[in-house]
Amino acid sequence: MTQKWKLTIEYDGGPFAGWQRQPNIISVQECIETAITAFSGQNPVELTVAGRTDAGVHALGQVAHVRMQREDLDAKTMRDATNFHLRPNPIAIVKAEAVADDFNARMSAVHRVYCYKIICNRRADSVLAHNRAWHVNADLDVAAMNAGARHLIGTHDFSTFRDSECQAKSPVRSIDRLEIIETESAMHGRHLELWAEARSFLHHQIRNITGTLKLVGEGRWRPDDVKSALEKRDRRAGGPTAPPHGLYFVRVDY
Amino acid sequence: MTQKWKLTIEYDGGPFAGWQRQPNIISVQECIETAITAFSGQNPVELTVAGRTDAGVHALGQVAHVRMQREDLDAKTMRDATNFHLRPNPIAIVKAEAVADDFNARMSAVHRVYCYKIICNRRADSVLAHNRAWHVNADLDVAAMNAGARHLIGTHDFSTFRDSECQAKSPVRSIDRLEIIETESAMHGRHLELWAEARSFLHHQIRNITGTLKLVGEGRWRPDDVKSALEKRDRRAGGPTAPPHGLYFVRVDY
Repeated sequence: MTQKWKLTIEYDGGPFAGWQRQPNIISVQECIETAITAFSGQNPVELTVAGRTDAGVHALGQVAHVRMQREDLDAKTMRDATNFHLRPNPIAIVKAEAVADDFNARMSAVHRVYCYKIICNRRADSVLAHNRAWHVNADLDVAAMNAGARHLIGTHDFSTFRDSECQAKSPVRSIDRLEIIETESAMHGRHLELWAEARSFLHHQIRNITGTLKLVGEGRWRPDDVKSALEKRDRRAGGPTAPPHGLYFVRVDY
Repeated sequence: MTQKWKLTIEYDGGPFAGWQRQPNIISVQECIETAITAFSGQNPVELTVAGRTDAGVHALGQVAHVRMQREDLDAKTMRDATNFHLRPNPIAIVKAEAVADDFNARMSAVHRVYCYKIICNRRADSVLAHNRAWHVNADLDVAAMNAGARHLIGTHDFSTFRDSECQAKSPVRSIDRLEIIETESAMHGRHLELWAEARSFLHHQIRNITGTLKLVGEGRWRPDDVKSALEKRDRRAGGPTAPPHGLYFVRVDY
């Protein structure tokens, strides 16, 4: 018998080549698998993840599952012992939960939530938000961005916003929420958050949408241009890809 | 003739030995003075600052003034040329303004605003808030902390909360606002912000107050114990000094 575990994970994507294990570069997956081997003795350890984030993308609530040979582990040990061996990497297991054998972090996910953080209308770089947000010099028109975003909500062929290397079989996805919120805090000044929610996303879909809506916010595209671009079903019709360091994988629902 | 400039400054205090220039270690002051010399040719450049922050303390709206020999500089050049030469240090001039000769960043300040950020009730370190907040394992009772804080608002002898190396002539200060706010964001979860406002503060005063109010939040002190400690006018009667990396110098009013 073995025991399956669900891990909820936070990380700063900055130092990593992304989630997925790859030869010769450091990935989030490899760091966690190595840490679990270090305290449990199990080798190999294999994580299955809800969303394979790109290099530089952050996570507040990434989820992975792992099958452990040992059955004597409790949730506190899974979490704290993994965290102990993860140091000093900026990765933390926020929660470890024993789950039934049919739980699958990727296949069982019914809803994924991402947030893209933009600091705008500010000439100097925000040093405290360095690598934590996209810094845009111009002021952005939030109402226009939301008008553009509304064309993308619902079920569509998202070929225009899909990376050429995307391996999904279908370019059709259903976006449940796509909204730009303006927030202001005494700590970080005025900034924007783009919230995107769907059962699943295509490769680079949110970053390509964000880069396109930024053009709308700057007044270089009209909101309706987003609709025309979507209907072309051609990546070359979309705007540029926003940088990875503004994107946060916030939550997965099961 | 010369021109006086007011600089509003943001920095990540992490890599620096504090604001003040010191031999053999890197300070925020030295980085900015060196950057101004680099583009202007003026040497020496001497900054006078509103608040000399300790090593590790951050600033969102620190203010300094500097006298420039050249009179041909405009505000955009002062800001952008300094920022260019500050790279890659996590320091940014947010704003540069020409000011009258009688402006003094330290002496003219009438109100200083600080914020201390605490992430609590969370077992794993928040890796995205690493060195940006004080991570406290326990849950903290915010109502009790505010009840304790109320004893410190107003004009008092703050010897109990004053560092032994504090060079101020008088231990008497007037705190206008001392309040703990509970905030929750999808991005960073539940966290606390302690806001402290006064014309001026003593050395370590906010960190010593924060360390003491944390004891109240944990239930180890009663709110009234803060009053007793204050009345003893003895540093040994106060709680421990909170770590520097949760503290932000937010704003100075003139």
